[in-house]
Amino acid sequence: MEVFLSVSFPLGVAGLYDFGPPGCALQANIVDLWRRHFVFEEEMLEVDTTILTPYEVLKSSGHVDRFSDWMTRDSVTGDVYRADHLLKAWIKKHVIEAADATPEAIADATMDLAKLDGFSPDELQSKFASYGVLSDLGNSLTPLSPFNLMFGTEIGPSGLLKGFMRPETAQGQFVNFKRLLEANSDRMPFASAQIGKSFRNEISPRSGLLRVREFLMAEIEHYVNPEAKNFHPKFESVSFHSLPLLSREMQSSGSEQVCMTRVDHAIEKGIIDNSTLGYFLVRIYLFLLKIGLHPDIIRFRQHQSNEMAHYASDCWDAELLTSYGWIECVGCADRAAFDLTVHSLKTKEKLVVRERLSTPVTELRVVAELDRKAIGITFKKDAKLICDAIALAQEDPVLMEKILQESLDRNKVAVPLAGWNSERSSASCPSDFVEVPSQMLGLRKELTTTHVREYTPAVIEPSFGIGRIIYALLEHCYWVRAQDEQRSVLSLAPLVAPTKVLIAPLLSQKSFEDLVSNIALLLKSKGIATQADCSSATVGKKYARADELGTPFAVTIDHQTVTEVQENIPATVTVRERDSTTQIRVFINDLPDLIENLVQGKLHWNNQLLSKYEVVQCSNC
Amino acid sequence: MEVFLSVSFPLGVAGLYDFGPPGCALQANIVDLWRRHFVFEEEMLEVDTTILTPYEVLKSSGHVDRFSDWMTRDSVTGDVYRADHLLKAWIKKHVIEAADATPEAIADATMDLAKLDGFSPDELQSKFASYGVLSDLGNSLTPLSPFNLMFGTEIGPSGLLKGFMRPETAQGQFVNFKRLLEANSDRMPFASAQIGKSFRNEISPRSGLLRVREFLMAEIEHYVNPEAKNFHPKFESVSFHSLPLLSREMQSSGSEQVCMTRVDHAIEKGIIDNSTLGYFLVRIYLFLLKIGLHPDIIRFRQHQSNEMAHYASDCWDAELLTSYGWIECVGCADRAAFDLTVHSLKTKEKLVVRERLSTPVTELRVVAELDRKAIGITFKKDAKLICDAIALAQEDPVLMEKILQESLDRNKVAVPLAGWNSERSSASCPSDFVEVPSQMLGLRKELTTTHVREYTPAVIEPSFGIGRIIYALLEHCYWVRAQDEQRSVLSLAPLVAPTKVLIAPLLSQKSFEDLVSNIALLLKSKGIATQADCSSATVGKKYARADELGTPFAVTIDHQTVTEVQENIPATVTVRERDSTTQIRVFINDLPDLIENLVQGKLHWNNQLLSKYEVVQCSNC
Repeated sequence: MEVFLSVSFPLGVAGLYDFGPPGCALQANIVDLWRRHFVFEEEMLEVDTTILTPYEVLKSSGHVDRFSDWMTRDSVTGDVYRADHLLKAWIKKHVIEAADATPEAIADATMDLAKLDGFSPDELQSKFASYGVLSDLGNSLTPLSPFNLMFGTEIGPSGLLKGFMRPETAQGQFVNFKRLLEANSDRMPFASAQIGKSFRNEISPRSGLLRVREFLMAEIEHYVNPEAKNFHPKFESVSFHSLPLLSREMQSSGSEQVCMTRVDHAIEKGIIDNSTLGYFLVRIYLFLLKIGLHPDIIRFRQHQSNEMAHYASDCWDAELLTSYGWIECVGCADRAAFDLTVHSLKTKEKLVVRERLSTPVTELRVVAELDRKAIGITFKKDAKLICDAIALAQEDPVLMEKILQESLDRNKVAVPLAGWNSERSSASCPSDFVEVPSQMLGLRKELTTTHVREYTPAVIEPSFGIGRIIYALLEHCYWVRAQDEQRSVLSLAPLVAPTKVLIAPLLSQKSFEDLVSNIALLLKSKGIATQADCSSATVGKKYARADELGTPFAVTIDHQTVTEVQENIPATVTVRERDSTTQIRVFINDLPDLIENLVQGKLHWNNQLLSKYEVVQCSNC
Repeated sequence: MEVFLSVSFPLGVAGLYDFGPPGCALQANIVDLWRRHFVFEEEMLEVDTTILTPYEVLKSSGHVDRFSDWMTRDSVTGDVYRADHLLKAWIKKHVIEAADATPEAIADATMDLAKLDGFSPDELQSKFASYGVLSDLGNSLTPLSPFNLMFGTEIGPSGLLKGFMRPETAQGQFVNFKRLLEANSDRMPFASAQIGKSFRNEISPRSGLLRVREFLMAEIEHYVNPEAKNFHPKFESVSFHSLPLLSREMQSSGSEQVCMTRVDHAIEKGIIDNSTLGYFLVRIYLFLLKIGLHPDIIRFRQHQSNEMAHYASDCWDAELLTSYGWIECVGCADRAAFDLTVHSLKTKEKLVVRERLSTPVTELRVVAELDRKAIGITFKKDAKLICDAIALAQEDPVLMEKILQESLDRNKVAVPLAGWNSERSSASCPSDFVEVPSQMLGLRKELTTTHVREYTPAVIEPSFGIGRIIYALLEHCYWVRAQDEQRSVLSLAPLVAPTKVLIAPLLSQKSFEDLVSNIALLLKSKGIATQADCSSATVGKKYARADELGTPFAVTIDHQTVTEVQENIPATVTVRERDSTTQIRVFINDLPDLIENLVQGKLHWNNQLLSKYEVVQCSNC
């Protein structure tokens, strides 16, 4: 569609697009609204962290090891394919659409397609074998290998310091958690936010603006006491809203039909995990409506258990309906304490909240009194790691109970040298453990009084793909006038439209054009973006051009205007609305307030408004 | 200084800083003002082009070959030094500050320091030899080598597609010139603009926020007919402004003292090259004043001839005075037609303006009628390149005159296979030329009528380092109250301050705190950023904290407020101004308009304003 070409400029390299002036202005307006809707209204702490991210940060977060897609190469030409895309296309073409396919084969293949996104690398590889997948040229393929999706680079001249262009803006917020908590005077819960570019080195970018290598994100990290997730201070203000939900259960039963459900009911029924998550789902929904998306093309789809990260407790995607189907545009995940925990472990800097207890708690807790000398003699260079691990474990009473039990059962304890963590069983290989005899640990139960409670906050993360939202919005707002296929219209909401007002002199004569700059100045002083069209085109052509760019209003200087000015009586212009093409006659002096109210949504172009003005009949609209 | 720590978070890797909440908000406000001052007021075409830039673009622009600093290594440890920094430090320490330095040696060394920034690589290397420079550890150094300052990466999985993180936002605008001209309905002059992150892999980052590896830029490319540079349509509106100029001549005569000069006079005297450049210098100056910089710390320094790129015709830096001395924060260069020409040559897509002449021009021009057959037989694979080069040359009548002359003088013409360009003599090696006999070119003079004139626009480029401006602004606005060294103040202009209003209940009692959210809502509805402080600190402490963050106004809910509310009479609060600490009593209902006008600069906190209100005496201010 032409509108996308005027909005985005392909760079000649797949997956990279520039935004031209209308796209850039639309994006700036949406970002501005986002900032007001979330950061400003919710008093979030916005940060601007670097795109260039040191290796260590993304190693801790797991991106270095796990942020990969699987690829395979044509064994002759070396052409690269993304494994899941290739398999999907192969199954469709060679089984489902094959002339000689049996019903059984089609049923199996359909099942494989449905499960494909959840396949492990081994399953994927074995499907390549069983379907006998070949390259586009009919050549055999190399075994699948992982391809990390981060763009790497080297920082400084030494060649020793590796870095990446960030794949998301979240990590920059997590590593600053301690400073953010401080900036918030240690009050919980609170949220940080960041708007900025992220980068993913897609194996095969596709679907226009939907799967690109550089994109604008806006992410919120809401930090909350895991025990207080079900109490959000502002939940009451949104509890009555209904959301178009497609829950895990509905998907399992094969339904694609959303169910409009009040958010408070969804939480009561356990469909949405907690009220903090519910609060943000409503706020996301209200934002999407505010920028002009129709409710019919919005749905919230819950992740299936196998889609979610192992640490996440619930996750919903706001999906928008496009010509490519339902596309994830906003993710809203309850990430539990995972992120802050992994960074804490790596940097040894505790990312926790310390909360003074109103009444101190006295309880029996397991404490360790280490025999450091014996540990030193026995374990030599590992001694310090062992002592550190035990010291860290002491902050977790439940873990210490387990350690005591192990000590009683086996008379020794397996101490992980990197410290205990939530992924202990899977992440560490056996050689990372050291068996320490119980007597060196000096474990015993002791009455302990605690004045301060420490906890690692859970994180609720609403994450917006601004580029995808813009794409869906453009598709959604584009239509063609019934009477004329050449006349396309972009019905952008006035609040986000790049230009609010076209100023069009009816004739290209000096007496008409002289008034253009006066009116432009009048509107600009109110902060209203205007564009004048003083070309020799007909006014109908001028309207059509502005319609294509989504400009919601047009002010026309006509014969009557010029006569009124010459006769020195209060002058009027016509104001045209884009979608209805109706026009009204307005005093120039009333113009700034009228347009401002229309743009801000304080006034609506409806019969009530029209009844207050002279409606003009026009043959060029 | 503490303020910088709260604004910027070091990442543990030199040259990378995160902006925390106050820094991020300050930056967002400055960017918003920039957009309104330049893009909006001047109707510039703002674009958002990718950070990730294909190799070819930066090869064309010259960055791949020439965007380097010179480095040297400790021959034992491998430690890397930036050559000019090391030499500068060495000369200072080992000559100028040496106990046994002779007056002659000091004079020579001082001269070398002054000229150091202009040294060629060979000169630099010979100075290393003559001063006997060693590494910090006293080891010998490796020969100087260039280090390219761009961060490189690989795009896609093939490993064949190289790219860089852009070192400036300008190139993304140049490559889109044709689309931008179209979007502007082919009208000239016009400007494009871009705000975004850029990246430079500094050898040794230093000076805090001044020399970093990732930074926010805002760049304008103003395209103008080279013959119309001295006519800017809006120049009259700024011609009367005076600028603090430090011209090339003043610097040559050893002066460091700026001269306040009216911009129209400076252009008449030939100090500033043309009125388009003059117009932008004034607009830059007004922007710097608007964000709150004092005129005393702003100067415009003209580049010396040896500082400028060979293609530039004039260049001025807006420098700001910081504790590191005068620092370039905005560059404003007349880059002539260089950028559009190099991209045209590389992509063979003409980046020119076609202007319909009001009266067609008929003149004798040199035309070529190529003997393509002979060229084909003689030059085989080079034949097409030769024909293309001649076709391109025909668009430049002056060049064709030269070619004809060469043909007459030598009976053959040296045709550069890559086409003629402005850098012909230096850029191409002899093997890139082919001697073509005159008879194959068929050169002759012919009466030609031209209806359309083509020209490559000149580019005037104001380029803002937002991070550096923020740094200078913070230094400039920071001071400590005379009566108390612990009480620091950040006197940010209300327009850019992160938070506009502190809301402080005098006591942490429910009757006081209940009013906080009402007042916050009232101000937020006007779009005014507020922060409430309901901690148990004294109100004096609350003021002090807000002063440190640059919050210009504080609204205090005191006993009188609470009483008035309880008695149901129109309630009042006090409003305190940060710098003067004076307070006035204001009706709550009047608050939104008063604060909005103060923030927008429509009202000023002066005696005239104070005389309209009850001034409150306060012991805690």
